[in-house]
Amino acid sequence: MIYRKRRPPIGSVPGTLAKIEGGLAPRIRAFRYSAESFEEKEFTKTEELKGFLPEGKQILWVDVQGLGDGRVLLELDGIFGFHPLALADVVNIPQQPKAEVYDEHLFLITRMARFDENDCYVNEQVSIFLKENLVVTFQETYGDPLDNVRARIRTAGTPMRKSGADFLAYATLDALLDGHYPVLESFGESLEDLEERMIERPRSSDIHEMHEIKREFLWLRRNLWPQREAVSSLVRDENRFIKKATRVYLRDCYDHCVQLIDILENYRELTSDLMELYHTSLSNRLNEVMKVLTIISTIFIPLSFITGIYGMNFKHMPEIEHPWAYPAIWGVILTAAGGMLYYFRRKGWLGNGDKPDDDKAP
Amino acid sequence: MIYRKRRPPIGSVPGTLAKIEGGLAPRIRAFRYSAESFEEKEFTKTEELKGFLPEGKQILWVDVQGLGDGRVLLELDGIFGFHPLALADVVNIPQQPKAEVYDEHLFLITRMARFDENDCYVNEQVSIFLKENLVVTFQETYGDPLDNVRARIRTAGTPMRKSGADFLAYATLDALLDGHYPVLESFGESLEDLEERMIERPRSSDIHEMHEIKREFLWLRRNLWPQREAVSSLVRDENRFIKKATRVYLRDCYDHCVQLIDILENYRELTSDLMELYHTSLSNRLNEVMKVLTIISTIFIPLSFITGIYGMNFKHMPEIEHPWAYPAIWGVILTAAGGMLYYFRRKGWLGNGDKPDDDKAP
Amino acid sequence: MIYRKRRPPIGSVPGTLAKIEGGLAPRIRAFRYSAESFEEKEFTKTEELKGFLPEGKQILWVDVQGLGDGRVLLELDGIFGFHPLALADVVNIPQQPKAEVYDEHLFLITRMARFDENDCYVNEQVSIFLKENLVVTFQETYGDPLDNVRARIRTAGTPMRKSGADFLAYATLDALLDGHYPVLESFGESLEDLEERMIERPRSSDIHEMHEIKREFLWLRRNLWPQREAVSSLVRDENRFIKKATRVYLRDCYDHCVQLIDILENYRELTSDLMELYHTSLSNRLNEVMKVLTIISTIFIPLSFITGIYGMNFKHMPEIEHPWAYPAIWGVILTAAGGMLYYFRRKGWLGNGDKPDDDKAP
Amino acid sequence: MIYRKRRPPIGSVPGTLAKIEGGLAPRIRAFRYSAESFEEKEFTKTEELKGFLPEGKQILWVDVQGLGDGRVLLELDGIFGFHPLALADVVNIPQQPKAEVYDEHLFLITRMARFDENDCYVNEQVSIFLKENLVVTFQETYGDPLDNVRARIRTAGTPMRKSGADFLAYATLDALLDGHYPVLESFGESLEDLEERMIERPRSSDIHEMHEIKREFLWLRRNLWPQREAVSSLVRDENRFIKKATRVYLRDCYDHCVQLIDILENYRELTSDLMELYHTSLSNRLNEVMKVLTIISTIFIPLSFITGIYGMNFKHMPEIEHPWAYPAIWGVILTAAGGMLYYFRRKGWLGNGDKPDDDKAP
Amino acid sequence: MIYRKRRPPIGSVPGTLAKIEGGLAPRIRAFRYSAESFEEKEFTKTEELKGFLPEGKQILWVDVQGLGDGRVLLELDGIFGFHPLALADVVNIPQQPKAEVYDEHLFLITRMARFDENDCYVNEQVSIFLKENLVVTFQETYGDPLDNVRARIRTAGTPMRKSGADFLAYATLDALLDGHYPVLESFGESLEDLEERMIERPRSSDIHEMHEIKREFLWLRRNLWPQREAVSSLVRDENRFIKKATRVYLRDCYDHCVQLIDILENYRELTSDLMELYHTSLSNRLNEVMKVLTIISTIFIPLSFITGIYGMNFKHMPEIEHPWAYPAIWGVILTAAGGMLYYFRRKGWLGNGDKPDDDKAP
Repeated sequence: MIYRKRRPPIGSVPGTLAKIEGGLAPRIRAFRYSAESFEEKEFTKTEELKGFLPEGKQILWVDVQGLGDGRVLLELDGIFGFHPLALADVVNIPQQPKAEVYDEHLFLITRMARFDENDCYVNEQVSIFLKENLVVTFQETYGDPLDNVRARIRTAGTPMRKSGADFLAYATLDALLDGHYPVLESFGESLEDLEERMIERPRSSDIHEMHEIKREFLWLRRNLWPQREAVSSLVRDENRFIKKATRVYLRDCYDHCVQLIDILENYRELTSDLMELYHTSLSNRLNEVMKVLTIISTIFIPLSFITGIYGMNFKHMPEIEHPWAYPAIWGVILTAAGGMLYYFRRKGWLGNGDKPDDDKAP
Repeated sequence: MIYRKRRPPIGSVPGTLAKIEGGLAPRIRAFRYSAESFEEKEFTKTEELKGFLPEGKQILWVDVQGLGDGRVLLELDGIFGFHPLALADVVNIPQQPKAEVYDEHLFLITRMARFDENDCYVNEQVSIFLKENLVVTFQETYGDPLDNVRARIRTAGTPMRKSGADFLAYATLDALLDGHYPVLESFGESLEDLEERMIERPRSSDIHEMHEIKREFLWLRRNLWPQREAVSSLVRDENRFIKKATRVYLRDCYDHCVQLIDILENYRELTSDLMELYHTSLSNRLNEVMKVLTIISTIFIPLSFITGIYGMNFKHMPEIEHPWAYPAIWGVILTAAGGMLYYFRRKGWLGNGDKPDDDKAP
Repeated sequence: MIYRKRRPPIGSVPGTLAKIEGGLAPRIRAFRYSAESFEEKEFTKTEELKGFLPEGKQILWVDVQGLGDGRVLLELDGIFGFHPLALADVVNIPQQPKAEVYDEHLFLITRMARFDENDCYVNEQVSIFLKENLVVTFQETYGDPLDNVRARIRTAGTPMRKSGADFLAYATLDALLDGHYPVLESFGESLEDLEERMIERPRSSDIHEMHEIKREFLWLRRNLWPQREAVSSLVRDENRFIKKATRVYLRDCYDHCVQLIDILENYRELTSDLMELYHTSLSNRLNEVMKVLTIISTIFIPLSFITGIYGMNFKHMPEIEHPWAYPAIWGVILTAAGGMLYYFRRKGWLGNGDKPDDDKAP
Repeated sequence: MIYRKRRPPIGSVPGTLAKIEGGLAPRIRAFRYSAESFEEKEFTKTEELKGFLPEGKQILWVDVQGLGDGRVLLELDGIFGFHPLALADVVNIPQQPKAEVYDEHLFLITRMARFDENDCYVNEQVSIFLKENLVVTFQETYGDPLDNVRARIRTAGTPMRKSGADFLAYATLDALLDGHYPVLESFGESLEDLEERMIERPRSSDIHEMHEIKREFLWLRRNLWPQREAVSSLVRDENRFIKKATRVYLRDCYDHCVQLIDILENYRELTSDLMELYHTSLSNRLNEVMKVLTIISTIFIPLSFITGIYGMNFKHMPEIEHPWAYPAIWGVILTAAGGMLYYFRRKGWLGNGDKPDDDKAP
Repeated sequence: MIYRKRRPPIGSVPGTLAKIEGGLAPRIRAFRYSAESFEEKEFTKTEELKGFLPEGKQILWVDVQGLGDGRVLLELDGIFGFHPLALADVVNIPQQPKAEVYDEHLFLITRMARFDENDCYVNEQVSIFLKENLVVTFQETYGDPLDNVRARIRTAGTPMRKSGADFLAYATLDALLDGHYPVLESFGESLEDLEERMIERPRSSDIHEMHEIKREFLWLRRNLWPQREAVSSLVRDENRFIKKATRVYLRDCYDHCVQLIDILENYRELTSDLMELYHTSLSNRLNEVMKVLTIISTIFIPLSFITGIYGMNFKHMPEIEHPWAYPAIWGVILTAAGGMLYYFRRKGWLGNGDKPDDDKAP
């Protein structure tokens, strides 16, 4: 979880794109639609996009997945005209979620959290450009939780088809945010499992799992708080790219942000509680172990001393000759042991250690 | 306490209602009243409600308990006209408490905390729609702490009967909030019990009970803070649904919110103090156990060594033959034991361990 | 310290007074004064107060101690006309300190902290109503720290006699706040005592005393922070009940509030430090105990093993027959013990345990 | 460090001066200067000051050290006309640093931190009154860090001589604040010493020293935060006593405040780190001690058991008669001991305890 | 990491430069450029700079490295005219990052973090003066991460050459801030190494390394937060030195600040987590050690007692004579030992201690 940012050399011209090594080849899919029409196309050359630009009331969504080829970005820049600082933020990742109004376009950075087809947890930056009739989205890997959004575009008559590009941008943002819910639920289940194990029999591997989860929470938190700020600024500050009608929906989106943060902060408190539980459990076990040691030692060490006395080889030990001495010493030993046991019981050491305590537990 | 939200598939049209599985069948009760008249009716079909709409200065309260049937909600929506995002918040629970002004109505989300007839703790979302002469409330289970409010509606001449729908909404909100007082008192009593046990003889089950309570506090806190914000915004920001006269009462309601939060935060501090007390108690016990072990070992291990010496079978051990050797060795043993005891007493280990200390305690 | 609020049944009409059980019978004293005149009277019936209302430039202070009789309050309400929500706050205690402007009057809730004649710590709500020429104060028990204020009313020519009702209300508030100073000083002395004991020889009773003090601090803090807010709002927001000249004095009063909070927060930090000191002390003691045990065990257990060897009864043990064997074994034993001691000294275990360390302490 | 405030009886007339017991006799020194002239005089009677009032463009600084005589203050009040609440703040110390604008004058409370001639740490309140051509400063003990300020007044041609009374007040405030730097540096050195000792061999006296330092930090913090607020309000809010030209310098003064707070907060974090270091060190030592005990016990207790077996006096123990039995038992003993040692080495208990660990440290 | 500030004597005239002892001799390099021209020169005498002042649209950057000679600063002051308080901040280091607008110039304090040629970590103050066509930068040591900025000045046609002095100042600030990224990455790698060691086998030297890192973080934090404030004020507040076009770039710079702080705060949380991990590890080891001790003691101490019994020399011990007594006692011993082992296994002490637990870890 150590932070590594892709960035150009220090002191470069602002807006320089960092070099990408080993990134995935860009896959470009475009959706052009209006209330009446719908077209969907996959592109291999950015050139061809020039013949797919929106006309009239049409809206174009260009969905770029994979940033492995810097030229493709520059070509797209040539077609759509992005601000150089914004374009740099697409490549020089990770950036914190934000919403920035440029003269040419609105620029959103958000994050996608999901489990991919192999059930691996993926947390990735998505950059969204919004113009009057254009939405361009960039992400680094393939796959996203936007299938329902695409379905709504494809279906004639949905509100989506009748609304503007700003509604599409909102729908994308909203779906990406909502994608955090199942992720958080999954973490929640891990915490539940951990808790059960903590109470029964904590293992040191649990601690490491807990630390992994804490770090994921740290990372999520880092992104969700600025995300909230970004959405809040979209709701609050008017700009020419987002219509008033869409702003009501963004308020709903903001509520989701707040709720996600709230869940996250609660989970963070739960993890501290679990750590505390674990330490309490460790202390209890130490106490229990020490009690066993003390009880055994305290009973047998003095008794051994008594046997030691009569194991001495002195010539003149009158007791030794006495016929009742041996039974008498047994009497002494049993009395001492019994006395000790009574003392421990009165102190509550016997039975408090482990069993009866657990029995009484609800 | 792991968070699970009922929500529609990711990327759905905003305002989609989540599927409800195994919910309770809706029970609809309506109260139609004005200063002069009062009617109360239970409905099984939403259809019939159309004949029960308020006329003139009449006010209608529709109280829906149980969300198990999605159609009923849509039918009510057809009659009263809710905003789709608001309606979704009724179903996709839990939502955080909030107060949202829509064009059509004011929409409040609040929470009800109570002990049901089986003395089980219930904490549930209540959604309130407020229009000019209409209040609609939704909750998921049956039962609420609003009987006194209903009594005030039924009684002619009460301020309630003379006031508008906003006063009814306030009275509902206020009663739901006040319902938190006995719940907090009950938690307070549990804390008091726990504390007594912590001081006397902590058991590991107490720790788990404490953790349960801490979680309930976490959950309550999650809801009370936004609740405060919501009530505060109602007091502060004017809107056409709430009259100025009612705002004075909402200020009182806000004070209750603040007080509930204050009590809760104090209880949270108390729980940390109790945890600390528990750990102190554990440490003290460990110290005590170790002292007993050390005293016993330190006295008897050296003595056993002495007996070991004269248990050796060497042929040439002059002391062994001496007639006074045995009494002499007893002298040595008693002196050594006495010296040790004196040393421990000087160090304050004897008597400080448990007894005298407790005796001196007030 | 578990929170219990006196409150009417949930859902009651706002402004309902809670039932008071076992409260003290109200004692009503009234002071009517102007720059020239002064009258003081004790009343048993509220009726008689009607003949004692202020005339012209006269100011009336009605001081009600004891809330055991709900009727008296309602009768006073009949005479002076309080807002129902404010009156409810007088009875449904505890309320948080606040300053509320109603149409009819200014309403202050503050708290009185003092040691009563039996040196018991009392922390109680005082409610103050302020009208143009009227101050009414309510408190639950008898006794207050306002004797100097009364003396200033009785003495002709004091600024008090020349000022309005708002100055009297200020003087009351100021004296009640200043009454917190000796209380905090007394807690401070308890902390000082505790600290000395913590350093010398902590007892578990000290921990419980500390927890008692922490709770009192929690409670004081709960009241002082809103008190500060209340006074601050009086200084900041103009209202028709408080003249500008009095506002300068309220600024002084605000400074006192800030200072009290500051002292309290410092004390709270001190208590955490003391807890830390206590735990450090416990750990040190455990270390010391374990060192003693380890030194004794490490020296004598191996030696006992040696004696064990030559306590075996094998027929063929050549060493046993040797005349110098016994002295030789003593040599081995003493060498081994000496070596151990040297090892412990080199490790710094001897002497570091308790004594020399304390000697070096300043 | 328990808080004790000098204050008049509760409920006194606002502005009452507290009685001072055992204070130092006031020493009054006055400096009267303008760009051209300079006079310096020490006064024993306040009467004489009347002949030393500033004329024309002259500025007068009256420096009062020692508050032991209440009459002197009242006489000065008679000459210069202070606001009663401000005058009370001079005497009823300690007050928190603040800047208050009265009709008659500006009133500053600040604090002086310094080491006196005996190298004792002194932290004391200084009160500053500022009028058009007058500065009056009060402090409780003799001595201050203002010698350089006085030198600048005495030297013709310095900016000080050409500026107004507000610049003198600023210079005084600035010098008093800057006096905190060497004090903090000295505390920093103590922390450095403590840290070295903590790492090498912590002693319990170090803990008490740490607690002393923490308290001084608490006290400094209590004063520096309101000090920052006070200076900030002087920079921000215009008032007729401070000219715009001086405000630039106050901004510098504000920067110093911020820096002092910053240093202090860092030191406070360092002390927590040191406490943590100390506890880690304690835990490590306990672990080390326990390892030694366990290794010794685990090796020798089973061996002693073996010797115990053959120390039994049964008639029929065939092994005992065997000529190779004794050497064989030695073999068993050495093998067992070796096995144990191998087991401990594999577990990393040997050598990890103290030595090799430190050797590997960088 | 103890704080030491270079400062003039307390009470000096504001703007006094502190004496510098042992500083590096100043190296002065100047760059004079416009869109068309470029000159670069190194100066040994400040005198010569007078012939290198910018003319027309030219911009001059004077880069001073080394503050060892106070006269040089005063001479530069003579040529360029700095505000005395600003000049003092250049010398009296460290100062907190800030951006101050004076009448004559904008004055920025920022910090440079880098690894020098010997891979030593350097964190140093850089002061920047900005006038219409002039940038002067001061730093204490030689070397900086600005080579790319210089290259952009040298290359004709870059945006830098076409922009004003404010863009140069921005580029410098941006490069200095970006220089923090590799530093934080390096700290991140140290944390990663530490974590691995913490999990496997923590050494006390790791703790000290962690404390070193924590302090560097403390120091970085102290500087980055005010840095953010400073950049934010440049973005927010208009001033005549920074053109609107440059402000967009400063917004980017602000984003970097926020991101650096974010990374730092995350690292700080990671270090606390690592400390926790370390303490958990210590506790686990102690538990493990104690279990071994307890198991061994609990098995062998009672057995030794049994052998002690039959090692006694009583004349009349009937068992001793019995031919099956010796085998019988072996039976008792083995049964007891087996019972103990069974008890420990049931309690989960065997195998839970170290091995199986680690095996199960993922």
